[in-house]
Amino acid sequence: MVKKPKWVVEKEQAKKAGAAETVWLFGLHAVRDALLNPKREKLRLILTPNAAIKLEDALAQAGIAPEIQDPRNFKAPIDPQSVHQGAVLEVKPLNWGSLEDVALGEGPARMILLDRVSDPHNVGAILRSAEVLGARAVIGTRHHAAPETGALAKTASGALERQPYLRERNLSDTIIAVQKMGYLVLGLDGEAEETIDQAVDGLRDRAIALVLGAEGPGLRPKTKETCDKLVKIPAMGTFGSLNVSNAAAVALYAVRG
Amino acid sequence: MVKKPKWVVEKEQAKKAGAAETVWLFGLHAVRDALLNPKREKLRLILTPNAAIKLEDALAQAGIAPEIQDPRNFKAPIDPQSVHQGAVLEVKPLNWGSLEDVALGEGPARMILLDRVSDPHNVGAILRSAEVLGARAVIGTRHHAAPETGALAKTASGALERQPYLRERNLSDTIIAVQKMGYLVLGLDGEAEETIDQAVDGLRDRAIALVLGAEGPGLRPKTKETCDKLVKIPAMGTFGSLNVSNAAAVALYAVRG
Repeated sequence: MVKKPKWVVEKEQAKKAGAAETVWLFGLHAVRDALLNPKREKLRLILTPNAAIKLEDALAQAGIAPEIQDPRNFKAPIDPQSVHQGAVLEVKPLNWGSLEDVALGEGPARMILLDRVSDPHNVGAILRSAEVLGARAVIGTRHHAAPETGALAKTASGALERQPYLRERNLSDTIIAVQKMGYLVLGLDGEAEETIDQAVDGLRDRAIALVLGAEGPGLRPKTKETCDKLVKIPAMGTFGSLNVSNAAAVALYAVRG
Repeated sequence: MVKKPKWVVEKEQAKKAGAAETVWLFGLHAVRDALLNPKREKLRLILTPNAAIKLEDALAQAGIAPEIQDPRNFKAPIDPQSVHQGAVLEVKPLNWGSLEDVALGEGPARMILLDRVSDPHNVGAILRSAEVLGARAVIGTRHHAAPETGALAKTASGALERQPYLRERNLSDTIIAVQKMGYLVLGLDGEAEETIDQAVDGLRDRAIALVLGAEGPGLRPKTKETCDKLVKIPAMGTFGSLNVSNAAAVALYAVRG
């Protein structure tokens, strides 16, 4: 029998570890949307009596019995600072399938690739924008990215249940893979010469992937080299920069078909 | 002597109260930008030795002597959860002058009006977008809005020092006031018939104010009535909505001159 290469073994191990992980969602909105999602594997639901009433409709469909806890003695294994509104739900991360599955899937041929954007609030907001403005997937890196967490789900305000969010091992490899699938890959870079509008002029019928870096470091050198083009969102002043989720929303809007 | 009307008295009282308030800024970035802002009235600066080294350049210009505190015993009157990075600065809120001053000031004739958007992180991100994409001011309401706080300043990432942020008593009155100054006032509303692009077609040389509501409630009925037009950012799907700061960024980009 042929021995599997090390990276395959590692990938499988990471996948196993990933599959074993569970996520604690919290907040009425995030918990309701997860309860209503038939693809979401639900493990444990803890509610206050009040939250149970508010989620009555979703509970009827969810197929999981809640543990009811007194609000004055609410013991869920989440950060006590979290605004949970008396509703927490333990789930398995969603499995969106392979990069190919989502990149060649339905909907507008747009994608967002994130180069080490680790803030869950930013990634949550980007998932919302991707859903509303239209993108097949948001792709992060396996490391130095925001994992699927309760905080991300809450900021995503339901979009985590509906908008594919994948985390790939290596971003440059992912860029090359989507280029082979026909995507024009544009890296957002404040120092770029060309504006995003100029770059997509006459190319809006192409599949387009947008790559955004973390605030501060921006895109890594290897990422910049691999993109087809570097583009900027035109700025009026000399100071300041857009928050990364705002930049993602503007960029998605700018390349709309 | 003519007795002042009650609303004038109230306005003066609110102004006095506002003038007496101080704000505790925190975090290296927010503190540096405030130290470097000559218009910022600085009252008290507390730094760890480490932060003092990192802010050395700004300290030389700031004209305020820091109190140095041990990081293990750092006692600043801010939320202990705040990521202060060993730097806190007590300041007076900035005085940007009157609505007229900013609305008829320099820069692109664009403004953002916020109808009870109270989340400081959203308002901070909106200030960043207003600075980068170009808007003369962000206007909130005096009540039910995000006051100038350390959390807002940190999210604004320096923009609070440079981007006018005013809070007016009554939003409908403010809309009427800017209409009289020549602004076309567009209210963002997901239920609107017309897209923002359609609404500004041929009108991009006009002064334009964008009105955004809080997530969930959206624009209040009185606000909707007062706007010149209600417009939407076109959505691809039937679910989800943009985060308010993302909507503000896309809208500002959509109406660029």
